[in-house]
Amino acid sequence: MPSYTAPVKDMQFVLHDVLQITGSDIPGYADLDAGFTAAVLEEAGKLATDVLAPLNAVGDREGCRLENGVVRTPAGFKAAFDQLREGGWTALDCDPEYGGQGLPYLMGTAVGEILVSANMALNMYQGLTHGAYSAIHAHGTAEQKATYLPKMVSCDWTGTMNLTEPHCGTDLGLMRTKAEPQADGSYKITGQKIFISAGEHDMAENIIHLVLAKAPGGGEGTKGISLFIVPKFLVNADGSLGQRNALSVGKIEEKMGIHGNATCVMNYDGATGYLLGDLHKGMRAMFTMMNEARIGVGVQGYAVAEAAYQNALAYAKDRLQGRDVTGVKNPEGPADPLIVHPDIRRNLMDQKSFVEGARAFTFWGASLIDRAHRTGDASAEGLISLLTPVIKGFQTDKGFDVAVAAQQVYGGHGYIEEWGMSQFARDARIAMIYEGANGIQALDLVARKLAADGGKHVMAFFEMVKTFLKENEGDARLKAGFLDPLKAASKAMQGAGMYFMQNGMKNPNAALSGSYDFMHLMGHVCLGLMWAKMAKAAYAALDAGAADRDFYEAKIATGRYYMARQLPACAMHLARIESGADPVMALRAEAF
Amino acid sequence: MPSYTAPVKDMQFVLHDVLQITGSDIPGYADLDAGFTAAVLEEAGKLATDVLAPLNAVGDREGCRLENGVVRTPAGFKAAFDQLREGGWTALDCDPEYGGQGLPYLMGTAVGEILVSANMALNMYQGLTHGAYSAIHAHGTAEQKATYLPKMVSCDWTGTMNLTEPHCGTDLGLMRTKAEPQADGSYKITGQKIFISAGEHDMAENIIHLVLAKAPGGGEGTKGISLFIVPKFLVNADGSLGQRNALSVGKIEEKMGIHGNATCVMNYDGATGYLLGDLHKGMRAMFTMMNEARIGVGVQGYAVAEAAYQNALAYAKDRLQGRDVTGVKNPEGPADPLIVHPDIRRNLMDQKSFVEGARAFTFWGASLIDRAHRTGDASAEGLISLLTPVIKGFQTDKGFDVAVAAQQVYGGHGYIEEWGMSQFARDARIAMIYEGANGIQALDLVARKLAADGGKHVMAFFEMVKTFLKENEGDARLKAGFLDPLKAASKAMQGAGMYFMQNGMKNPNAALSGSYDFMHLMGHVCLGLMWAKMAKAAYAALDAGAADRDFYEAKIATGRYYMARQLPACAMHLARIESGADPVMALRAEAF
Repeated sequence: MPSYTAPVKDMQFVLHDVLQITGSDIPGYADLDAGFTAAVLEEAGKLATDVLAPLNAVGDREGCRLENGVVRTPAGFKAAFDQLREGGWTALDCDPEYGGQGLPYLMGTAVGEILVSANMALNMYQGLTHGAYSAIHAHGTAEQKATYLPKMVSCDWTGTMNLTEPHCGTDLGLMRTKAEPQADGSYKITGQKIFISAGEHDMAENIIHLVLAKAPGGGEGTKGISLFIVPKFLVNADGSLGQRNALSVGKIEEKMGIHGNATCVMNYDGATGYLLGDLHKGMRAMFTMMNEARIGVGVQGYAVAEAAYQNALAYAKDRLQGRDVTGVKNPEGPADPLIVHPDIRRNLMDQKSFVEGARAFTFWGASLIDRAHRTGDASAEGLISLLTPVIKGFQTDKGFDVAVAAQQVYGGHGYIEEWGMSQFARDARIAMIYEGANGIQALDLVARKLAADGGKHVMAFFEMVKTFLKENEGDARLKAGFLDPLKAASKAMQGAGMYFMQNGMKNPNAALSGSYDFMHLMGHVCLGLMWAKMAKAAYAALDAGAADRDFYEAKIATGRYYMARQLPACAMHLARIESGADPVMALRAEAF
Repeated sequence: MPSYTAPVKDMQFVLHDVLQITGSDIPGYADLDAGFTAAVLEEAGKLATDVLAPLNAVGDREGCRLENGVVRTPAGFKAAFDQLREGGWTALDCDPEYGGQGLPYLMGTAVGEILVSANMALNMYQGLTHGAYSAIHAHGTAEQKATYLPKMVSCDWTGTMNLTEPHCGTDLGLMRTKAEPQADGSYKITGQKIFISAGEHDMAENIIHLVLAKAPGGGEGTKGISLFIVPKFLVNADGSLGQRNALSVGKIEEKMGIHGNATCVMNYDGATGYLLGDLHKGMRAMFTMMNEARIGVGVQGYAVAEAAYQNALAYAKDRLQGRDVTGVKNPEGPADPLIVHPDIRRNLMDQKSFVEGARAFTFWGASLIDRAHRTGDASAEGLISLLTPVIKGFQTDKGFDVAVAAQQVYGGHGYIEEWGMSQFARDARIAMIYEGANGIQALDLVARKLAADGGKHVMAFFEMVKTFLKENEGDARLKAGFLDPLKAASKAMQGAGMYFMQNGMKNPNAALSGSYDFMHLMGHVCLGLMWAKMAKAAYAALDAGAADRDFYEAKIATGRYYMARQLPACAMHLARIESGADPVMALRAEAF
């Protein structure tokens, strides 16, 4: 059975040594001193290790059951969810006006990583609620906020997102769910939605569904779409729960993983709904949820990988098999531990260097969100908008690869469910699909985000890399191991951008054929930048005489690995991109 | 529910246009004319489509159950297995002296691909039997052969391989299972074996276990190991079944996939066993099975990918979502099919170009086995011995990637078990682990096979590529799209070999740290060579006025894709290899 320990030290390194949050000018950051962040992260870690992680396998094994229209979550889930809620973990970065603790999004992200690592399926119940909270917070009327937000902040009520229908996923313009206006200003919502995570369950008093539907007069395609609040139980004027709304679960899906989360088919049969935000502007409101959800899924990508890695590492140190070819390491034992073998070491370093790099990247992204929200900095907003598809797409692809690689360390035992490594791979798989399949992330990145605001944000990104390189070019310790590979990677990314500019106008397919490679290329540049920054911070700590030299030296060694072994992928991605649309599109659809 | 159609045309292209088997000097090949191969493959395809494929999901859903020491296979498995057996499909390439049809191994491989694509878990029951058959055929006494082989050829009796124990997988020297010699020349076998595929089931009268165990006097480590025939029911002198042997199933494992195959813990409690081959030479006998099994697993790698690809392609043509950015393709419909989108096309081309390349590579490998076995050609034997870890390791890694990519085409539906795409990914996962985890394949390749016979075989491989390039350098149609990338890839592989030679002697870890990358680099060179050969054959067919121009043109376009989009990985692998042992080994085990 896998176990999990929150990597508090590593998180603090990113927060304090790399991002230096305490000295940041972002409002609220000055309060986040090392004592405070340690207290929060360690407390979350305790809950994760003692309560959530032991339920992870239970959730996978038992799954959710639909009985007479009611979904039963796995044994122990409700009690654990109560602990989450009572500990205030669901309210961390929510608005104090509605009962939140008002901490920065960054802290919510760090704690979120811990909760996801311990139990992704369970944490989704609150993660989706947070997304719905944000949409209502951003677009709701004062009355809507007062009615729903306090209960959602505490997770007494949970939330959902309802986009997909059987015939329409990515292409929401095909949507059929209808909203008919009623005399009292409400709407009757009718239609079927699928893949609704936490659509129904037994852990909260009420469920607030946010549902996209077409109201009359909006025109064709996505233009006609509006967003509605559709509570499971209508809420009386005094805040008490009223009538059961006309919505029900059609079935729950049998999935590859995240069995502990109920993925529902939801049927709306003239259910009462309330317009959220402007009529026919539902897509915009939905994107408030969606962007946040995408960062959240990017966290899932590396958080599940972290948990898988921790267990693979423990196994590699424990399992005795074969001998170190350079000399026996465990002469007392019948064999040496797996970790002596170079290919096992390579595998573990792949895992470790990705997870730590992704953590730094994500925390940096979260700090950009705080900067954008708390200071109104438009360039931070533009930059995180550019990075979001990379955080989501690249990190979930690589996170899945890491979970699969961690499983591989166990040999045959990795394939046996009892050992728990299969679950990490199966759970991680969904993150590549939901909240916009990764191909859509790549499309978003290349077709929208690169060109947004005249390409300003990607230029700012390149400028940032360039400035970092320039500022540190005198540091001989960083030069060969970090700066040179980062420079080459960034140059490859610029080359790809150039290729898109020169060819994409004539033939959009020339850019779109390379979009997936570009997402990965950019992901490597981002993690390369993070590793260079982490190495710099580690050297600084060593120079300052830090007590825990081993930690900082390990950080530098891990970074060197990423630069030497992962960044060579950049040239490959560039070569693929520059091969253009021809190889991809030459075969006519009929000729397949 | 997924479906499957045998790619007979594509197989025949490899057999006849590329390998030109009918004109080969390998004994038996002259009989394999196009009419004959079509008849065999189509008949196998019919069985696969009508009988085996529909049971694939059933097997996954029901799994195997252990009830009172008896394993029940999923509904329909026994009847289907009977059809396999009665149709002679299990006897295809077996020795006519024992009831086999005596066809080349190549035909067995082609038919094997079809059966695996349709139902991997079901086909394993006969696949393992074939491995056990080969070991007894190669190492058994005349009496043993007469006793066991006829029944195993027909699969009235099935076979197993028993290597792994709870504490020992790769490192067989740690083995504890004991063999005590008895007065009558038999042995009493005592110990526990795990991960025994098809260890117990209800589809055959008897199960012939081949068990590795330590007999007295053999010394430490693998030197003391011998191989034993341990039948579930002892066989009387007249060939009838006698006493139940002292062996039993401890449990069956809950696995990530291949649920239709019973993976058993086997307990041997003084079971009667008969020495197979020489005492204390069990590893050698086991490798007869193992090498064959590794090719078989390499087939699983791309065969499951083929099935997944077929379904992803059908879905991409059928599912309407979004519009072609270069102009609407389906104006009558609400949206265009997925296949118009470049990133979907990229994904499908990744799948298609791998599967077709792997098929050609594997068939070529199978023809080398025939050449080695039927003509005693030592260089063919050496070459296939070099290629085996690549066929196993590279193809199962990539095959899994393809199954995951195929699942991605389905979006959210890919994650729902009902659609069947998850099963392909879950089933394909095991092929990276069993018969030697892929890290072991890479180790075998770099530490043993490259250097075998003074490096003769890898030199022969390079020579073969060079000769092909030279012979075709005048063909302008092949030059830029095929020959140039193949040359660059082969050069990268030579560079890697050179790096190993120059550094591996001083520090074995310098070679071992790059072994996994080398396996993949070599895999790409092999598939690149195959694609160049296929392109040449396709141009030749077009020049000769072949009727089905679309087929040959598609072949060339698919090959161009592989060369342009996959071979750039070679430079990346070389860069990683040349970064040496330092990045991999710098972090001390304790510092992780």
